[in-house]
Amino acid sequence: MTAPISERLDDVESARESGRRKMDWAAQHMPICASLREEFETDRPFAGERIGMAMHVEAKTAVLAELLAQGGAEVAITGCNPLSTHDDVSAALDAVDGVTSYAERGVDDEAYYAAIEAVLEHEPTITVDDGMDLVAAVHEDYPELIDTIVGGAEETTTGVHRLRAMDADGELDYPVFAVNDTPMKRLFDNVHGTGESSLASIAMTTNLSWAGKTVVVAGYGHCGKGVAKKASGQNADVVVTEVEPRRALEAHMEGYDVMPMAEAAEAGDVFITTTGNRDVIVEDHFENMQDGVLLANAGHFDVEIDLDALASIAADTYEARDGVRAYEMADGRRLNVLAEGRLVNLATPIALGHPVEVMDQSFGIQAVCVRELVENGDAYDAGVHDVPDRLDKEVAEVKLAAEGVDFDGLTDEQAEYMDSWQHGT
Amino acid sequence: MTAPISERLDDVESARESGRRKMDWAAQHMPICASLREEFETDRPFAGERIGMAMHVEAKTAVLAELLAQGGAEVAITGCNPLSTHDDVSAALDAVDGVTSYAERGVDDEAYYAAIEAVLEHEPTITVDDGMDLVAAVHEDYPELIDTIVGGAEETTTGVHRLRAMDADGELDYPVFAVNDTPMKRLFDNVHGTGESSLASIAMTTNLSWAGKTVVVAGYGHCGKGVAKKASGQNADVVVTEVEPRRALEAHMEGYDVMPMAEAAEAGDVFITTTGNRDVIVEDHFENMQDGVLLANAGHFDVEIDLDALASIAADTYEARDGVRAYEMADGRRLNVLAEGRLVNLATPIALGHPVEVMDQSFGIQAVCVRELVENGDAYDAGVHDVPDRLDKEVAEVKLAAEGVDFDGLTDEQAEYMDSWQHGT
Amino acid sequence: MTAPISERLDDVESARESGRRKMDWAAQHMPICASLREEFETDRPFAGERIGMAMHVEAKTAVLAELLAQGGAEVAITGCNPLSTHDDVSAALDAVDGVTSYAERGVDDEAYYAAIEAVLEHEPTITVDDGMDLVAAVHEDYPELIDTIVGGAEETTTGVHRLRAMDADGELDYPVFAVNDTPMKRLFDNVHGTGESSLASIAMTTNLSWAGKTVVVAGYGHCGKGVAKKASGQNADVVVTEVEPRRALEAHMEGYDVMPMAEAAEAGDVFITTTGNRDVIVEDHFENMQDGVLLANAGHFDVEIDLDALASIAADTYEARDGVRAYEMADGRRLNVLAEGRLVNLATPIALGHPVEVMDQSFGIQAVCVRELVENGDAYDAGVHDVPDRLDKEVAEVKLAAEGVDFDGLTDEQAEYMDSWQHGT
Amino acid sequence: MTAPISERLDDVESARESGRRKMDWAAQHMPICASLREEFETDRPFAGERIGMAMHVEAKTAVLAELLAQGGAEVAITGCNPLSTHDDVSAALDAVDGVTSYAERGVDDEAYYAAIEAVLEHEPTITVDDGMDLVAAVHEDYPELIDTIVGGAEETTTGVHRLRAMDADGELDYPVFAVNDTPMKRLFDNVHGTGESSLASIAMTTNLSWAGKTVVVAGYGHCGKGVAKKASGQNADVVVTEVEPRRALEAHMEGYDVMPMAEAAEAGDVFITTTGNRDVIVEDHFENMQDGVLLANAGHFDVEIDLDALASIAADTYEARDGVRAYEMADGRRLNVLAEGRLVNLATPIALGHPVEVMDQSFGIQAVCVRELVENGDAYDAGVHDVPDRLDKEVAEVKLAAEGVDFDGLTDEQAEYMDSWQHGT
Repeated sequence: MTAPISERLDDVESARESGRRKMDWAAQHMPICASLREEFETDRPFAGERIGMAMHVEAKTAVLAELLAQGGAEVAITGCNPLSTHDDVSAALDAVDGVTSYAERGVDDEAYYAAIEAVLEHEPTITVDDGMDLVAAVHEDYPELIDTIVGGAEETTTGVHRLRAMDADGELDYPVFAVNDTPMKRLFDNVHGTGESSLASIAMTTNLSWAGKTVVVAGYGHCGKGVAKKASGQNADVVVTEVEPRRALEAHMEGYDVMPMAEAAEAGDVFITTTGNRDVIVEDHFENMQDGVLLANAGHFDVEIDLDALASIAADTYEARDGVRAYEMADGRRLNVLAEGRLVNLATPIALGHPVEVMDQSFGIQAVCVRELVENGDAYDAGVHDVPDRLDKEVAEVKLAAEGVDFDGLTDEQAEYMDSWQHGT
Repeated sequence: MTAPISERLDDVESARESGRRKMDWAAQHMPICASLREEFETDRPFAGERIGMAMHVEAKTAVLAELLAQGGAEVAITGCNPLSTHDDVSAALDAVDGVTSYAERGVDDEAYYAAIEAVLEHEPTITVDDGMDLVAAVHEDYPELIDTIVGGAEETTTGVHRLRAMDADGELDYPVFAVNDTPMKRLFDNVHGTGESSLASIAMTTNLSWAGKTVVVAGYGHCGKGVAKKASGQNADVVVTEVEPRRALEAHMEGYDVMPMAEAAEAGDVFITTTGNRDVIVEDHFENMQDGVLLANAGHFDVEIDLDALASIAADTYEARDGVRAYEMADGRRLNVLAEGRLVNLATPIALGHPVEVMDQSFGIQAVCVRELVENGDAYDAGVHDVPDRLDKEVAEVKLAAEGVDFDGLTDEQAEYMDSWQHGT
Repeated sequence: MTAPISERLDDVESARESGRRKMDWAAQHMPICASLREEFETDRPFAGERIGMAMHVEAKTAVLAELLAQGGAEVAITGCNPLSTHDDVSAALDAVDGVTSYAERGVDDEAYYAAIEAVLEHEPTITVDDGMDLVAAVHEDYPELIDTIVGGAEETTTGVHRLRAMDADGELDYPVFAVNDTPMKRLFDNVHGTGESSLASIAMTTNLSWAGKTVVVAGYGHCGKGVAKKASGQNADVVVTEVEPRRALEAHMEGYDVMPMAEAAEAGDVFITTTGNRDVIVEDHFENMQDGVLLANAGHFDVEIDLDALASIAADTYEARDGVRAYEMADGRRLNVLAEGRLVNLATPIALGHPVEVMDQSFGIQAVCVRELVENGDAYDAGVHDVPDRLDKEVAEVKLAAEGVDFDGLTDEQAEYMDSWQHGT
Repeated sequence: MTAPISERLDDVESARESGRRKMDWAAQHMPICASLREEFETDRPFAGERIGMAMHVEAKTAVLAELLAQGGAEVAITGCNPLSTHDDVSAALDAVDGVTSYAERGVDDEAYYAAIEAVLEHEPTITVDDGMDLVAAVHEDYPELIDTIVGGAEETTTGVHRLRAMDADGELDYPVFAVNDTPMKRLFDNVHGTGESSLASIAMTTNLSWAGKTVVVAGYGHCGKGVAKKASGQNADVVVTEVEPRRALEAHMEGYDVMPMAEAAEAGDVFITTTGNRDVIVEDHFENMQDGVLLANAGHFDVEIDLDALASIAADTYEARDGVRAYEMADGRRLNVLAEGRLVNLATPIALGHPVEVMDQSFGIQAVCVRELVENGDAYDAGVHDVPDRLDKEVAEVKLAAEGVDFDGLTDEQAEYMDSWQHGT
């Protein structure tokens, strides 16, 4: 039986102190969670609930776990990836009243799943996932819990995708909110979070600047728009590649150069993929790139840059710099791949993932979704559910209030006027 | 019986020449229509069709009417507003093979409706409206035409709104495309068209500059985003007011100041309303504005600025400049209203409406919608229909090709990969 | 002997009213002049002085003339160009206490110079020029005035250029301030004034939009920077041509495409020259331009676009639109020249010249220069003088105060620290 | 006697390899140095010269030292700061033909100066300084070298300042180029280099984002303009504080909020000082700041934020995060100071200093200055000299060529036209 992290570390006190410091830093810059904390500490909405969590156990997530406990829940948490756990944060979290943390960095598969089981032994009434590990384990190994589970929340694109597949097959036996798909997340997380953190990670990994560079952004969805806008804001000359004509036109009308990747390959100094698709930059493109280019991926999976093809045509390859692998062609050109083509804002040695404020929004939605399950769980059938619009709006309102931003309301006359327009007379 | 415009003007030749010059200028900058012209002149998709149109008869619309005729249609057209017709353009259009134009500027109500009847006497098989005058007249006075009418297309927000109401009441007896609601229109027409033309019209009506000005943009929908972005791009300091918290947050995260209008009223130098709602700037706001402010509306109707209230509290009012009415308060402050609170990009003395390229996109959609009715009219039931996505995309592709912008396609492997994601495995 | 304008117009009252309305509009948006007015009305610095002016007599200049009179001066004014006078403004100005205006639109050469003589018959003690007409006439025909003239101020690049030549030849017999050359004028007038007004004039003359257009800006001095920045701010894709490598590099590092005009000629949709040099766009370039391009000049003289060459290779030429002349090539391409290659923000039919606020700054400097001549005229030898830095700064301070912008001062310790740095220890 | 670094390290081979890797990365992104390398390897302009250098011995500087050696010089180098040396780079440099490196990290004062002496024992004919250590040592301890020294080059503001003081006192006995003061350096190093690297360093040290933040930039010189522009380009809402009215007005006209620091202190989320002055943020300001603010300095010295005052009023202080010290007030507010108020782009744990491309420009100027001394040293008297304009332009041209950016030249007619304007006729 897996024990909580506190029982496994050598110097628990020092780890707790270090982890607490990290959590405090994050909490200081998470105004939405801070505002919800005030509400939850008063209302104790989660009293009597047991919440199981499987997420990246680092400072920002820890603030969410603590918040749920502060709302009265008994929280049991483990990691969702053996490499993303910060042991000090796990220890600090384990020391929080009402929280038990099993997450430990670098554990093997057996220990990883044992920790998930340890969480489920708490008999959670709510699951909070980042990759649906808990939902899967419940359905496979702990079906007896399903009756008492009110519902779950899932953070990631991948997790939501897999849940929808389960749902389509009629095999998802309790309601789960698709937190990933809310407007709040798409507009802020993708545009500002991915945009800023990808560029900062590239700059600090390479010591290079953006001014005057030709930056090729592959894909002009929310992530691509963010990367393009932020790169342009650093005085790069942005080139966009797209496959959807209206997005291509949108980029063109924004003032960017739009062209096929075959052409962009020759023009670019830096390439950033954001398409969510595979094989965006392939052998033919590598052949025509300039010496010294940077290749980075800001899309979910490491399938956008065809590294196998690159390796196969390279004469040599070596670590050019921490987080940068150079592929040297026979003609001497060096193509520099960051973070092995994985998410550049997460996978370079110095990367920190999404900015704190962006996770504050995502976790704010998680928290109100959990509250919704407790308060109105009966209203939701088994299956995947979009986050109700009013919850998404509530979090926006909380954020604005926390930032001291006031805005207008509709008068009755205005509401009636709009209503008459939207619904016909 | 109303006669075509050519039979009513004194100096037809000179009018035709002048109108033709205007049409040529527009056509020169309408690459989508130019591209469709090549297709239509070859394919003659409208051969045998009779198209009735009621639209603003000025140069850009004339290019659409001519295009439909070039595609084989017999076109009969009149104005949709007695004041928006350019007689010279009407005359030039009437001289086009296959087109009869009844539009004349400044006609009285009787003549206006007589012209609509004249169009319907052509027994159109397709109607193209800008305010649903033809649809209304057909249903009320020419119901016998309905059997042979394939369908219609409607350009405006108002028209679509009224059509949806008819449809809801079961009283719309043939299919009509809601051209106003396409992504192409919202993204380009509203953002770029409204944004640029509103600012240029204000600048050239007032001889004032944007740099350093505090510009209050009421509403952060597509129009508001366009106005804010373009004003910021002229070095104005932009303030946004909103009633929807996520839009307010979006504006805040973009870097704009967000505040209630009560506060913005004191800060602003220029106010531009884009909400589509009434009473956005009202008496309390006027009381706190600075001397010399400009008030302009870029929303559909002249209800956003409460001019009645302004008049009632003003000590004096006078024409400060062509297109600018000053309301002078008892304390000496002067509040300057542009274009009487009507659409500032259309209603100042020098205003030209939307830029040519923007109308090219709207009219390109109109044209392919008409083609769709001819080719697949049977597929559409009576009622309001969204423009099929493939038509919207087609026009984007035509525009990109016309601008010489090439873009990528999906490989089969990529299409399959995306597909597996979107629909589950 | 030329009589004041009031004695020559048919309907003086109505002209005065119209002119006054224009002056009031300008004055309302000239906070620097408004602030100086308060000072001057109290201090009467110009009491006893006679000020001769030869400037464009339109609303903004009229505010300056009135301001000088409000400061106690006897002002006599005439136009500096027979076509730029607004008779109504001239009449309104003539009605101002202490001002006599001789300016009349469309007069012939003889009447033009008679009006200059009429001004000089007032025996001015100070001259204010826009093109050095008064300085020239004094030196040539009224040398007896030189003894009592305290000094002058010159507004334009051309005037300053010619004055420096006179000065170099030892032929300038009283001190003249080169108002044109101050930092305030270069930074604001050129960057914001030229930038905004050129783009607005082009947009409203052509009914075209900027989004997605390739705009070629020739020259990356202050005017070019302004045009490029503002065009980019309307979502144009900006191309810069330059002859100075550091400016070219500056444009490149800003994120613009930099290339020779030979290459830009093929890429551009709109061309705007700002170099101050001749033959920037010539025959070879015209040969390679696309159909429908716009050609506009924002530099001082109409020498930047070689219209003679264009006319010589065109198959046809015609007025495509008010303010736009089309040159049609044998291959059907149409090249559209705005305002006959003259200053596009001044010479299209709807152009209004520089924005009011920009002229407020220029005229504020004029006014404090005149005050400086009165107060410290003895300190200046005959010759051209740069505007003293403290006057330029004073006007900046007045502007900031008028806009309600507060800023920091240096503490003694800070001043000492900076001083130790700048001058060594 | 100090020995070269290679004789002092334990594992020289591994250090050399690591250092070489760093140098190769830098060299790959220094096109100006690459272009000069081609020229120098052919021309060997430095054959017979001995160049003494005292600079930060890290990868970018190493590329300059190697470049000078490739041009034929015998180079001896040591560090200019005991903490900025990278031993591996020093070792790699020492292995370069013609280079001897004495730089070692963390040496004590005695060893530091012994290394400077070791460099001077090479009897340099040219000195290249970053803080005038060599110039000072020559004048104080090795005056006998002065006769054979052709001249020197100095990189820093501080060094140039001290040299000008020596010069004013008549105590500088050979010519030194003030490399710091060139237009190329001010426009690119300050605007783009400081701007981008400061923001990236702050983002990656704090894991915070810029979107929606109020960022207070103190000072609107070149550095401040860069920081403001880049922060705005990441969607921050920028506030500027200034003491010079024209700069304040420039910021206001750019669209930024301008206010005194006393007011900005309450509004800001992040504060970045760039003034070059002391006491920019002081006790009164700290008292009014919000909880959680970030305080960073991008100016030369750590005097801009008054940390003594901050410490004196803080109830507690602790390391909130690597590179971030929190000062906790009695009322619970936490003020977070980055890098102890030292240059934030250089002094946080992850900081990398200026981007490689920016140093490429500075070092390109250094290299052509050294060449100028060799070729035309006789033309320069003892004292501080501005870098000749033609050298600054040459480096701009080299950079443009290296980036593949072509630009226009003047025709004879154009040159004559401009000339007639600039010098009078």
